[in-house]
Amino acid sequence: MRETTRVGDSYFLSLREGARLTPKGADQMALHFGGRTSTFRCESSANLQALRQLGGEGGFEDRLAQQVLAAEGPEGLASFYYYIGLLSQRCLLRRSLLADDRPLATLIPISSSFKYAPQELEPDREYRLSRFAFMRAEDSETTLESPLSHARVVLHDWRATALVHDLARACRPADASDPIPIPEDTAARLITLLLQAGMLTDETPSLRSWEFHDLLFHSRSRLGRHDLPIGGTYRFVDELPPPLALKPAASGDSIPLYRPDLEKLKREDPPFACVQDARRSIRDFAAKPITLRQVGEFLYRVGRVTEGFTSDVPTPGGSVVMDFARRPYPSGGAVYELELYLAVRACEGLETGLYHYEPRTHRLEPISGRTDDLDGLLSVASVSAGIAGEQLQVLIVITSRFQRVSWKYAATAYALTLKHVGVLYQTMYMVATAMQLAPCGLGCGDADLLARAIGTDYYEESSVGEFLLGSIGGSDEGSEGH
Amino acid sequence: MRETTRVGDSYFLSLREGARLTPKGADQMALHFGGRTSTFRCESSANLQALRQLGGEGGFEDRLAQQVLAAEGPEGLASFYYYIGLLSQRCLLRRSLLADDRPLATLIPISSSFKYAPQELEPDREYRLSRFAFMRAEDSETTLESPLSHARVVLHDWRATALVHDLARACRPADASDPIPIPEDTAARLITLLLQAGMLTDETPSLRSWEFHDLLFHSRSRLGRHDLPIGGTYRFVDELPPPLALKPAASGDSIPLYRPDLEKLKREDPPFACVQDARRSIRDFAAKPITLRQVGEFLYRVGRVTEGFTSDVPTPGGSVVMDFARRPYPSGGAVYELELYLAVRACEGLETGLYHYEPRTHRLEPISGRTDDLDGLLSVASVSAGIAGEQLQVLIVITSRFQRVSWKYAATAYALTLKHVGVLYQTMYMVATAMQLAPCGLGCGDADLLARAIGTDYYEESSVGEFLLGSIGGSDEGSEGH
Repeated sequence: MRETTRVGDSYFLSLREGARLTPKGADQMALHFGGRTSTFRCESSANLQALRQLGGEGGFEDRLAQQVLAAEGPEGLASFYYYIGLLSQRCLLRRSLLADDRPLATLIPISSSFKYAPQELEPDREYRLSRFAFMRAEDSETTLESPLSHARVVLHDWRATALVHDLARACRPADASDPIPIPEDTAARLITLLLQAGMLTDETPSLRSWEFHDLLFHSRSRLGRHDLPIGGTYRFVDELPPPLALKPAASGDSIPLYRPDLEKLKREDPPFACVQDARRSIRDFAAKPITLRQVGEFLYRVGRVTEGFTSDVPTPGGSVVMDFARRPYPSGGAVYELELYLAVRACEGLETGLYHYEPRTHRLEPISGRTDDLDGLLSVASVSAGIAGEQLQVLIVITSRFQRVSWKYAATAYALTLKHVGVLYQTMYMVATAMQLAPCGLGCGDADLLARAIGTDYYEESSVGEFLLGSIGGSDEGSEGH
Repeated sequence: MRETTRVGDSYFLSLREGARLTPKGADQMALHFGGRTSTFRCESSANLQALRQLGGEGGFEDRLAQQVLAAEGPEGLASFYYYIGLLSQRCLLRRSLLADDRPLATLIPISSSFKYAPQELEPDREYRLSRFAFMRAEDSETTLESPLSHARVVLHDWRATALVHDLARACRPADASDPIPIPEDTAARLITLLLQAGMLTDETPSLRSWEFHDLLFHSRSRLGRHDLPIGGTYRFVDELPPPLALKPAASGDSIPLYRPDLEKLKREDPPFACVQDARRSIRDFAAKPITLRQVGEFLYRVGRVTEGFTSDVPTPGGSVVMDFARRPYPSGGAVYELELYLAVRACEGLETGLYHYEPRTHRLEPISGRTDDLDGLLSVASVSAGIAGEQLQVLIVITSRFQRVSWKYAATAYALTLKHVGVLYQTMYMVATAMQLAPCGLGCGDADLLARAIGTDYYEESSVGEFLLGSIGGSDEGSEGH
């Protein structure tokens, strides 16, 4: 211990909620968390006692360290810090800053990469909250997280949150708290904790062009710097019924579509390497539009249900009966959450309007004729593609029935959906190329507008991709297109 | 106006920063924002005066309304609310809550769908911050946003932020402020503003399985409910040089790869419809592993540079010279930000280890042999695929050189990258199927671990996708695989 540290000024250490340490025999401790138990050896009785206190009501780091030091000297103390490091690396150690015996803020590691290090504030340096740090309410508490950080901070006290507010502006430690009713030295200790947690990180060149929502998403939808459940956890299996494989067919009339002869295609299609080599984005559509028959063949080859089945799927806690509806492209876990809508401006044999593709019966379900919403969708697409609106023939809008994925997959649900959208784009590109049609994937669309146009709840089903399809016009030299 | 409203208790209205209203002739106003000007007719002199005040120092809504009502009666007042609605719909109207003449919080619409409505708090109802609402620092201010909301709230005063802290726990309006030094009626008015902004929204069934990072990302990477710049804005063109099309080749030895005869493949490949029909995820790899020659052909058909060129690209403010390197799959704006790495456990002719694929020279650059990091990558992949680690042959890890996309594209950069990953997955599936290899796309990986293993800055380049490749074993009945 450094001599400048006063006892009781250090962090109050405790185990994370749900974690337990129990003695096992004379010289071992068992660590229980998340249904798992791991055992480690501890031959030092002073450390056993310190660990028992940690696993019970907790204790100040310096006091625990002093007890161990008094009983077993520097060697015992080294072991103490080894155990503290071990618990921290396993994301089980909470470090709380107390003021007047009440917790102000608690630092909790959320990945094994979190490195705790003592820090000293420089009184004349200005500190500032990173633009990537964010506060939100979770389980009735205010938490502070950041995709730059391998830790989470729980802000127990409104004065702590108020201090974080003040750090939106760069300020010296002595100026941060004014006029929040918090003692200056307590404020300084809180700023130190925020610094240790990685919330006051400076901007580096590689962060310059990252946007908040992008970096948060990258950090949370992949492993490495969070402690969220991830992957096929089926966490809603006991709360919500499995979302259906297919949207119920609409009432009302629907339009049957042409079905190509698949066996003939398997004999007569160009070789795969030819299709791959010939594939390109084409934005130059012909004056004579695509036909309903071509649209039928395209949708059949891209999106029809190839196989429907029901399966008893194993889950972490048992199994669940789910229905499935495969399509002609791959989908993680065979969830197939994507739906296809056609915003038609010009197609021979099909009225201008908005349609839903029903993939089981291979039919189009009319939603509306020409409306302001349809014009809006086509207009956004023409801007996104950089071509005149009169050029458009068929805009295919891809939606996701989000719950089909998020009911099963934790943390990765939306990332999986966007990968599926990419899979579908490439499938559309290849099929359009094989059919000598003009394909062009788009970069963005309006999800609120689409939900309104098709009459869905934005959170249940809204758009995640857009693709233009038409008949091929003259030469297309879109030099930097897809 | 309702009689219960006291003058000065209403919101203080002003124009958003950067917006200006100027008179044009005797009966028109010109509205300037973001480099654009729109003109609207206003024949009422009382409204002209009110609008001038709005465009100047601003004013309390009730006072402005009373002035118009006194001068021109109910008809003038109706016009006043029409203009207020117009400015609000265009996201140009700020509504501020003042306490002691200083702004406490300001509500700013961020989409044309924002609907402002008077609200009354119910004294016995409990209010609570939505788990989707979040606060962060931006431009030295603390903002409160939510993917459920079409508005943003700026929290000017630390007491406002402290009150938001208290709303992490459901509480009645009278209990929310205690012990924050803020008068109870002011706290109630702030809670009303948060309610109007959509920050206290209740959870609906369709929100149940959404995670915060997913919904935030969906709302911000697509049009509809934000006012961020979006699409190919080239916003860093004057600050940062364009990121290079290709990673500089590594020094040291590299391994030349087999190049297939593309013309022969274009004659002899199976028809496209056959490949599409035969494609499936295969997790059952043969005991005899894939060969280096197969890996070479696979990478050549999936990822080589097919064309390199330099182009003078138009930007909103002029043009910029960029280099490009096309691959055999589509990429938005031809940015091609994805890199391929091979984590090899078993491949005939190639040592176990980690390699980078150099797509211009079609060579493998060795990074490391068998290390803990390599074992870690293979271990995460085997868990993700649900197969034993000894089964693995080649794990292909896809990274993104993020800046190549985010330098050009705003709001949609990471979404675009994930679509590209999906495009690449499907390209890999098809090529592997044509080559009679076993392909299997994975759902997740560890981005921090990969960055460490290849020695890159996580924010410059880390992993966004994983794919298994091997030789085909016995029958594979992965019933719900891709």
